[in-house]
Amino acid sequence: MDHISKIRNKRPVVHCITNYVTANDVANAVLAIGASPMMADDPFETAEIVRIADALVINTGTISETRFEAMMKAGKAANAMGKPVVLDPAGVSASLVRRKRALVLLSEIKFSCIRGNASEIKALTLGNSHSRGVDAAYDDLFDKNDIEKAAKIAADFSRKTGAVTVISGAVDTVSDPDETFAVYNGSAMMGKITGSGCMLSALIAAFISANGEGCGTVSAALSAFGICGQIAEKRMGEHDGNASFRNYLIDAVYGINDDILSECSLIKKL
Amino acid sequence: MDHISKIRNKRPVVHCITNYVTANDVANAVLAIGASPMMADDPFETAEIVRIADALVINTGTISETRFEAMMKAGKAANAMGKPVVLDPAGVSASLVRRKRALVLLSEIKFSCIRGNASEIKALTLGNSHSRGVDAAYDDLFDKNDIEKAAKIAADFSRKTGAVTVISGAVDTVSDPDETFAVYNGSAMMGKITGSGCMLSALIAAFISANGEGCGTVSAALSAFGICGQIAEKRMGEHDGNASFRNYLIDAVYGINDDILSECSLIKKL
Amino acid sequence: MDHISKIRNKRPVVHCITNYVTANDVANAVLAIGASPMMADDPFETAEIVRIADALVINTGTISETRFEAMMKAGKAANAMGKPVVLDPAGVSASLVRRKRALVLLSEIKFSCIRGNASEIKALTLGNSHSRGVDAAYDDLFDKNDIEKAAKIAADFSRKTGAVTVISGAVDTVSDPDETFAVYNGSAMMGKITGSGCMLSALIAAFISANGEGCGTVSAALSAFGICGQIAEKRMGEHDGNASFRNYLIDAVYGINDDILSECSLIKKL
Repeated sequence: MDHISKIRNKRPVVHCITNYVTANDVANAVLAIGASPMMADDPFETAEIVRIADALVINTGTISETRFEAMMKAGKAANAMGKPVVLDPAGVSASLVRRKRALVLLSEIKFSCIRGNASEIKALTLGNSHSRGVDAAYDDLFDKNDIEKAAKIAADFSRKTGAVTVISGAVDTVSDPDETFAVYNGSAMMGKITGSGCMLSALIAAFISANGEGCGTVSAALSAFGICGQIAEKRMGEHDGNASFRNYLIDAVYGINDDILSECSLIKKL
Repeated sequence: MDHISKIRNKRPVVHCITNYVTANDVANAVLAIGASPMMADDPFETAEIVRIADALVINTGTISETRFEAMMKAGKAANAMGKPVVLDPAGVSASLVRRKRALVLLSEIKFSCIRGNASEIKALTLGNSHSRGVDAAYDDLFDKNDIEKAAKIAADFSRKTGAVTVISGAVDTVSDPDETFAVYNGSAMMGKITGSGCMLSALIAAFISANGEGCGTVSAALSAFGICGQIAEKRMGEHDGNASFRNYLIDAVYGINDDILSECSLIKKL
Repeated sequence: MDHISKIRNKRPVVHCITNYVTANDVANAVLAIGASPMMADDPFETAEIVRIADALVINTGTISETRFEAMMKAGKAANAMGKPVVLDPAGVSASLVRRKRALVLLSEIKFSCIRGNASEIKALTLGNSHSRGVDAAYDDLFDKNDIEKAAKIAADFSRKTGAVTVISGAVDTVSDPDETFAVYNGSAMMGKITGSGCMLSALIAAFISANGEGCGTVSAALSAFGICGQIAEKRMGEHDGNASFRNYLIDAVYGINDDILSECSLIKKL
């Protein structure tokens, strides 16, 4: 495997249209893996900026009307230029307007990969046919620890969208229309910080831009980030909490290489 | 005292409409105390998101017209649903437009707690009757080290607004219409980082949502965060500065529990 | 030299209109050097906030139409009040709209200092006469390791704009219309994090507001921040990556003083 060295040799530009809460972590994680972040969300420039990017990440956290417009323009430009686009439907289960915007993105833009947690992917699968309030948690619709069920939902959604679909959880499932993998790397500490998912989605874009699309590349990205979580957790001392973990996690992305990835990767075909 | 274990058992959702400068720290601090942050500031969705939240924090740092609209909608929705709302009038003494917006928020929304530094609370007490420029510092209006005077201003403002009022300083004063407390925990390093106040306001919301409103709960939140500042300062090594302190502070929030709070809390009834 | 003690004695207010990606780091770096950050980007208040500020920094990262308007108002107000303004044309080589906005800022506002990397300064020198796509990297127009050439471009641009011009790189060049300096302090790790340039531009504003304008002050700021990079790099342990470096860098700004600056400064007149 040479997924990571390929990123560091190519130094791809990853254009991130993302939320302001975790933008700093996302940019530093992209730098840590050896790619170059381009953070821009003005609708007047995002389509142009896609021209100098190797991949685009659209993250719906703290989405606004303007940022949504920027996403639409950038996504269409990326499609027209054949550049990979990753969707992170952050918080899409929390409001109807966010879900509707995500559905418009899904219908107008072709994504290489869609990554969310169980609630987020489930919210997307409901489409426009349901208009139930967000107060009904999507979590009740399926057990997030039921890997078989998550795998089925991911596979169905992948067949519908054509995108490699990732459902993040204690175990991640990754599906394209033909096959499904489970990735067992990771740390429970990743749920104790903001931005784990956002960073992962941007790293997936970096992996794809240097290694090509598909289930194998995305699984490698998930495994790599999960291993970084394990490394970061092991490094924690007595007084460390989630702030130190966040730093150790990005540090681990900076330090990971293909040897570590090969040795520690826990991916299983389902 | 079981203030903190109650938060960790309930895992309340704290909806934060806050500034982009410290949003990441706020989200990580909310996670560290055991609550779940929901960061969203689009006027099209904030009222809806309040439905899945247990408390709302409105922070006027980097306020914009759109974010102000989002605050108004969310605040009114929270009031209608009986959910607690915390106001952090960040930077309200720095511009007239920010003060005016804060006054509109105050007149239209009922707050459970209002927390600011002396200048900010003083600026709010001036209401619309004064239109002096911001170049005259509000600090000159009262000595921030004069606890008796701060307590009086906090108590008066609490009687006027009905909100528990906190004036943060070297010593914090906490007032409801009936009683006033002084909280002696804290570290001078907290003034050397951005976001101490923003994090504290969000933590107050987490405390209230799991422990109920009132002077006692808010004092406990202040004391807990102040103790975290003391723990973080003690942890600082020779080469550490404010960046490490920030990490240690959030780490301390992650590590604090009710035993530490009981043992170290320094609260005095005035 | 007493550049840093002058900042810590005066505690100048640095008003930053900057991007949301690195705003937190910028605010903490400004606090670390002993100044006071004021982060505000609402066009309704920026001109007023300039009145309580000692210096203004305009950073074009994640620029939007609204933020651009806020910059224009603040910059003009600062000029009218004789307060120093620093321009960081972040990402200006990445899109035409960003370059056009930067050119409007340049034509309407008088800057004390303009700091960018080679591509950014080069993009500004092209003015409106070129409308080539951003896909042609400006890097090909001159070799960034060619200090003589960078010095010439900086000097020419300084004569044109009247602003002290900094081209950041492995070696920084600093020019006013009369003289040019090369600053040799720094660390390659500064290119592995987001925000090095943004923090530096804000620190330049802090230095200017306490030490006066000119090549000497700006060179001192560059040297100081470069030394902090060297200190931070030396502090890195086996498992540390760019996240820890970022913390160590801001910590080093917190810890630096005029003795360290005098001892380690590597500035050469060209």
